[in-house]
Amino acid sequence: MIQQVKAFFRHPGRLIPLLFVAVILAGTLLLMLPVAHVGSRATRFTDALFTSTSAVSVTGLAVLDTPVHWSWFGQFVIMLLFQIGGFGIMTSAVLMALLVTHKLGLRTKLATRMEVSQALNLGDFKAILLRTIVFSLIVEAVAALALALRFSALDYDLGAAVWYGVFHSVSSFNNAGFALFTDSLMGFATDPWICVPVALASILGSLGMPVIYEVTRRHWGRRQWSVHTKLTLIGSGLLIVLGWGAYLVIEWSNPATFGQWAWYDRILPAFFQSAMVRASGFNSIDIGAMREDSLLASIILAFIGGGSASTAGGIKVTTFFLLLLVIWAEVRGEPDVTAFRRRIDPPVIREALTVALVYVACNAFGVFLMQRFEPDIDITSIMFEVTSAFATMGQSTGITYDLSEPSKWLLTIAMYTGRVGPVLFAASLALRARKRLYRYPSARPLVG
Amino acid sequence: MIQQVKAFFRHPGRLIPLLFVAVILAGTLLLMLPVAHVGSRATRFTDALFTSTSAVSVTGLAVLDTPVHWSWFGQFVIMLLFQIGGFGIMTSAVLMALLVTHKLGLRTKLATRMEVSQALNLGDFKAILLRTIVFSLIVEAVAALALALRFSALDYDLGAAVWYGVFHSVSSFNNAGFALFTDSLMGFATDPWICVPVALASILGSLGMPVIYEVTRRHWGRRQWSVHTKLTLIGSGLLIVLGWGAYLVIEWSNPATFGQWAWYDRILPAFFQSAMVRASGFNSIDIGAMREDSLLASIILAFIGGGSASTAGGIKVTTFFLLLLVIWAEVRGEPDVTAFRRRIDPPVIREALTVALVYVACNAFGVFLMQRFEPDIDITSIMFEVTSAFATMGQSTGITYDLSEPSKWLLTIAMYTGRVGPVLFAASLALRARKRLYRYPSARPLVG
Ligand SMILES: [K+]
Ligand SMILES: [K+]
Repeated sequence: MIQQVKAFFRHPGRLIPLLFVAVILAGTLLLMLPVAHVGSRATRFTDALFTSTSAVSVTGLAVLDTPVHWSWFGQFVIMLLFQIGGFGIMTSAVLMALLVTHKLGLRTKLATRMEVSQALNLGDFKAILLRTIVFSLIVEAVAALALALRFSALDYDLGAAVWYGVFHSVSSFNNAGFALFTDSLMGFATDPWICVPVALASILGSLGMPVIYEVTRRHWGRRQWSVHTKLTLIGSGLLIVLGWGAYLVIEWSNPATFGQWAWYDRILPAFFQSAMVRASGFNSIDIGAMREDSLLASIILAFIGGGSASTAGGIKVTTFFLLLLVIWAEVRGEPDVTAFRRRIDPPVIREALTVALVYVACNAFGVFLMQRFEPDIDITSIMFEVTSAFATMGQSTGITYDLSEPSKWLLTIAMYTGRVGPVLFAASLALRARKRLYRYPSARPLVG
Repeated sequence: MIQQVKAFFRHPGRLIPLLFVAVILAGTLLLMLPVAHVGSRATRFTDALFTSTSAVSVTGLAVLDTPVHWSWFGQFVIMLLFQIGGFGIMTSAVLMALLVTHKLGLRTKLATRMEVSQALNLGDFKAILLRTIVFSLIVEAVAALALALRFSALDYDLGAAVWYGVFHSVSSFNNAGFALFTDSLMGFATDPWICVPVALASILGSLGMPVIYEVTRRHWGRRQWSVHTKLTLIGSGLLIVLGWGAYLVIEWSNPATFGQWAWYDRILPAFFQSAMVRASGFNSIDIGAMREDSLLASIILAFIGGGSASTAGGIKVTTFFLLLLVIWAEVRGEPDVTAFRRRIDPPVIREALTVALVYVACNAFGVFLMQRFEPDIDITSIMFEVTSAFATMGQSTGITYDLSEPSKWLLTIAMYTGRVGPVLFAASLALRARKRLYRYPSARPLVG
């Protein structure tokens, strides 16, 4: 019996989600301590659970105003939780990917012919773990220094400047999106000394460890990068530029957002929003005041999300672009789906399709449920909120504070499953793959 | 030069869309004749074009009240248009499918091993054409007789009863959804003698010629049916039952829809709505009064649509279930996607994915545009209207009459491309497929 229980938990696919639950519950307890909040209003269990889940899943949605409700200790706990959560999710995803690579290598013996996410073949888990820690610390330190200097220049006293620098830097790199300002970073919308470090740290955090590992190795030429790395880098770049342009065009004359600034001051906030919506979820403009089209664009971008094995959410950049590549190959009548002179292994396409469709279905179900819970909130805000939670993005049109209890529970579950689910789901799909000794004759039903 | 022009138009993939345009324009001219309408208000070009497109594409959306605006001649022209349109779309789709089969047969020489939509291997185009005509006439005659008897029993005089019977029968089988009542079939919501013949004719029309051809052949055992036929029949049945249940549950206590009737009188309208939303687009309840959840369910069902090479629209039942089968195979770790003890040819899966995603993208783009044109209409109604047009379904929450000119043009284009597009698109995808003499080494990017 004990043996069986041990064996059950030894598999990382079962251990990882439980570890996340454990950290979330520990965080909930710490946040419920009287010392964690200021003022007389005690923290309710559901609100503490929501906050802890939001931090560990590096989402950033908040039912309580972070700078107003939480004490310094509470804020420190939240920072600890999203540092643990961000590190945990990166390493978990890498671990699962290594398991897949290992199993595929053992079984198919194709390792020499097939580029099984090159980056992960090159080192063992320990080396990747070490690289993750070192890289995280360097980026966080540099961003923290830059931010602290800026806060200091804005007349914060030294201790506050350092604390604000560290908190927002860690929050950026781990794509947590928690801010120590009630209006997130809206006060710094046109301040490049705040927005650029936050954006860069966020983007670096959103690329994912396999990409970082490959790009930071000593001897490399661009040619040797894996398809995964090229697809993630070029895809992320494209999405940032597309989003940047879309926000500029749509919000240009909106007096509640970009319209309040001179034309040259609209460039930075548009870039910032484009970078944030697929990563950290900070906001430097009022999301609730954005036009409907911007909200829909944001929902799509958040849904796509960042890189695999990163702290960003969504179906992931590679998943999205693989589906586009399928369409491209199909329209051109190519027998293979190719990218960067490599043929994409067909099972990967099935995986991508499955991940995307299951994601759409879960997200739609969440919207369907919340719409029942919140009959008075418009459908766009509900779609935005649910997608934000499920893609662990963290922006909100401003409805989070006023949600009913069922909706808060729904978002809590969405943040947790949106974070832990895809990592395990994609890997388990790849791990489940088995051989058949017989095959049925083939059929060709009509389509369309 | 003339030779080149001739060669250009000889290809059915170019000829078919032009033939549809020709019929639509001829219909527009006929509908603009003074004799086509009653009353002093002349028919404007855009409204005549909209009506003609709606009829030829067998959609059923109307910017003018069919029984009020049009004379008997006008109504007769509309009936002619949707009879030509319905027959044209069925035969075009069969023709394209035969071309694909032929090309695949020539090229891959796999015809003996592969079940290339069995039904279409068995006869030549003429035989299928003849079967289509005979089957259409029989179903239309039987339904017309049943409806005429009922209208007669409802005290319509003989001529009117026959005309109403014929018009609604042809409208049903061709999934056109045009009705001679201002409120569609709401006056007969609980009358099985009207609703059942309409529903049966609609469902038969929505299965598609390959299925009809296979099911109506003389000697058959269920085992010999093709995967296409089994998937379409079982899929359609499942969707009807699911929709039936969903509408019953959601609308049960809605005083504006089912709530007005005794409990046993709610069964029929729920079935009717479930059958109509994927086929004809008649309605026996007030669509605009339905609950938000019902509207969303309707959008999904309309989007899935009916059978391939039928008069129903959408991405088609087989496309939808193929994608579900991919997920099922993926989750179970099966190397092949299988259905009914047949392995689905992998290129078909890529086709299904492409059709579905391109469809989603076009539909979303339509919603995006109409939202700009109609800032005062809620997003759900716009989604419903655009999907209804693009999936040539024909129900409306009631906003069609009041739309701006750009929106009417948008819907006109949506109805035309939604009808002609998928047939040609899916076939052209299959026809474009080519061989490569070289293959790149394979790669396996991470997903999720
Ligand atoms: K986030
Ligand atoms: K229709």
